[in-house]
Amino acid sequence: MLDARGQEALTGAAQSEIFQILRDGKPRTRSELASLTGLARSTVAARVDALLRVKLISPVADAASTGGRPSRQFAFDGTHHAVLGVDIGASHVHIAVTDLHGTMLADVQEPLAVSEGPDRILGWVIEQGTRLFEPFADRMTLRAVGVGLPGPVEHATGRPVDPPIMPGWDRYDVPGALSGEFGVPALVDNDVNVMALGEHHGFWPDVEDLLFVKVATGIGAGVIVGGRVHRGAQGIAGDLGHIWVPEAEGVECRCGSIGCLEAVAAGPAIAARLRARGHDVHTTADVTASVLRGDVDAVREVREAGRIIGRVLTTCVSLINPAVIALGGSIANAGDHLLAGAREVIYTRATPLAASNLQIVRSRGSSDAAVAGAAAMAIQHVLSVDSVEALLREDVFPWMQV
Amino acid sequence: MLDARGQEALTGAAQSEIFQILRDGKPRTRSELASLTGLARSTVAARVDALLRVKLISPVADAASTGGRPSRQFAFDGTHHAVLGVDIGASHVHIAVTDLHGTMLADVQEPLAVSEGPDRILGWVIEQGTRLFEPFADRMTLRAVGVGLPGPVEHATGRPVDPPIMPGWDRYDVPGALSGEFGVPALVDNDVNVMALGEHHGFWPDVEDLLFVKVATGIGAGVIVGGRVHRGAQGIAGDLGHIWVPEAEGVECRCGSIGCLEAVAAGPAIAARLRARGHDVHTTADVTASVLRGDVDAVREVREAGRIIGRVLTTCVSLINPAVIALGGSIANAGDHLLAGAREVIYTRATPLAASNLQIVRSRGSSDAAVAGAAAMAIQHVLSVDSVEALLREDVFPWMQV
Repeated sequence: MLDARGQEALTGAAQSEIFQILRDGKPRTRSELASLTGLARSTVAARVDALLRVKLISPVADAASTGGRPSRQFAFDGTHHAVLGVDIGASHVHIAVTDLHGTMLADVQEPLAVSEGPDRILGWVIEQGTRLFEPFADRMTLRAVGVGLPGPVEHATGRPVDPPIMPGWDRYDVPGALSGEFGVPALVDNDVNVMALGEHHGFWPDVEDLLFVKVATGIGAGVIVGGRVHRGAQGIAGDLGHIWVPEAEGVECRCGSIGCLEAVAAGPAIAARLRARGHDVHTTADVTASVLRGDVDAVREVREAGRIIGRVLTTCVSLINPAVIALGGSIANAGDHLLAGAREVIYTRATPLAASNLQIVRSRGSSDAAVAGAAAMAIQHVLSVDSVEALLREDVFPWMQV
Repeated sequence: MLDARGQEALTGAAQSEIFQILRDGKPRTRSELASLTGLARSTVAARVDALLRVKLISPVADAASTGGRPSRQFAFDGTHHAVLGVDIGASHVHIAVTDLHGTMLADVQEPLAVSEGPDRILGWVIEQGTRLFEPFADRMTLRAVGVGLPGPVEHATGRPVDPPIMPGWDRYDVPGALSGEFGVPALVDNDVNVMALGEHHGFWPDVEDLLFVKVATGIGAGVIVGGRVHRGAQGIAGDLGHIWVPEAEGVECRCGSIGCLEAVAAGPAIAARLRARGHDVHTTADVTASVLRGDVDAVREVREAGRIIGRVLTTCVSLINPAVIALGGSIANAGDHLLAGAREVIYTRATPLAASNLQIVRSRGSSDAAVAGAAAMAIQHVLSVDSVEALLREDVFPWMQV
């Protein structure tokens, strides 16, 4: 026979209901929670105690009372648990420790090429992540790791799939490698979804529908629909770089196809056009440097790339009618030239109603969007119904801990 | 002070929790419901009784028992409540009575032009809807009306907004007119969203992401994302007809813009091209008649329209990565020619992974998709948490009924 605490543990869904109510941060008394859930006062009291024990909620200042003993209020408190956000880019790695409110507590960044392979890169992540979290270990528990990778990731397994710029990473068990070392779940997604999440979470939390478009060496989008990352049937929603565009008719793309958007509007294509005009421009970084120096040809080419991307985005606007398009990535962040080209086309061609309230902006998260998004992904996992239930079960049956 | 039933009425969320569990149709015993919700046995018993009183669940065959008194099981039963589905097309009106499982019990259809105005059309809907429901009135309660209209509808109010082919309907209070007469809520949406819902509900219930594209006198899409109709920031997601396409460069559209997809790929544009070749073809209906007669020019033009539409859909495939594209509307339903043109382009141009599992099909719902979708919209409303709670409150406090 199970005692009351054991019984309680088996009904996790209803337990976590109280936490899901408190998650909005608003303080509530036990009796407010009882009337919101329809649970008996004694049940609510036991469940509030359990949430206090696992340090997901805290008592807050006493509620105003009409005389008599004041009622104690409780609210979500994310300061006792931490996550690691990890942004692995083509040529850098960035790690941050945040609490469950997303507040960044410490971070470290290093220029490291993803092409050095998973052992080298993940080794650095494990070493630096452990070092970074150490000062917080006496007062916080690490709960999850979120990782963004610069290539396609199979959502179900978190493994990179045929990543073009990541030799040695294909099907590598990134979540297994990290959760094995850190002893917590590791969530992995591609960098664009992670940046979209960071941009949405950090700057547009009240917007339901947002498109984050990264324009750098490649072109891709993170699609936020109804407030969540939309992945689609094969998990490849937002793969805008390889859409056929008339401007690329006959132009070969690095993917092997002909006519892709990337083949005319991403960094390497812009560099090639500038070289054809006699400029000494080879990489995406060379393009952004030229633009920031004010080179007229480079500015003109980036603006034209913005127009080509804008024509594709016009169709996206009609299809999903977003409230915000945020342009990020190194080419979009080199001045406002890509933005200007995209705006010119979208505001001219989108239907009046879709365009009237559409904001087209540069990504605000800039260099921290990816690491903040990776942390946000980890936090979403930690605060999910299943994870909170698992935490409450672990509190009741410590020997059940996996 | 409230008695037990009154107390219960104030905690509707938890009441409807039991119903939302039973909604999948699987029979469960009271003790199964208690362990699923974590509610006390006595509370579950009271709530099951309330759901039995409002006839949303029924007892089913006794559960297998290991000796002793067998436990009674309960399951969702939608046969005691009805909805009306109303499909108002450009030149027809179709009404059906269904139960809450979506089973069509009776329907009636009449050729009526929407341009005759809201008094005439809604008058007919009220008269025929009342007549149609009458034979079921002794054993079913009418709970909601769902309506599809051939023009843009403001989601928040259910009113048509600047509908091009609906003179007299602009900002007309369609929900008010119908709910006033039928005494139940009326939900209104545009015909394409309603057809997408009918197609999804009826034929692809397990698919999360589906695009329904209507090609007739106009072109529009209903976007199902994560199993729900996606509306977007201004409620105009899916407005594909007025996307700028290079094939329409310089061609004026009925919307006043230049270069719209509709201006080259919808019924009237196809008719114009056939007239230019000397055919006596004027309307969209003339086009479909020519195609069905096997006229080679008409078949060729519809196939070419399919290719133009397919190029736009290729971008949509990359953006939202749907599992299914269903093509409906009179032009798409005249043989497989539009489908063939669209498939040719999409399967050639979409990225390999997005194309590999994508099904591109003709709408299966055909003429009933719209009325079934309108009913599905009404059923979704009736079975929502808020509506079930209202029904349970009404059971406890009949004088609170609005």
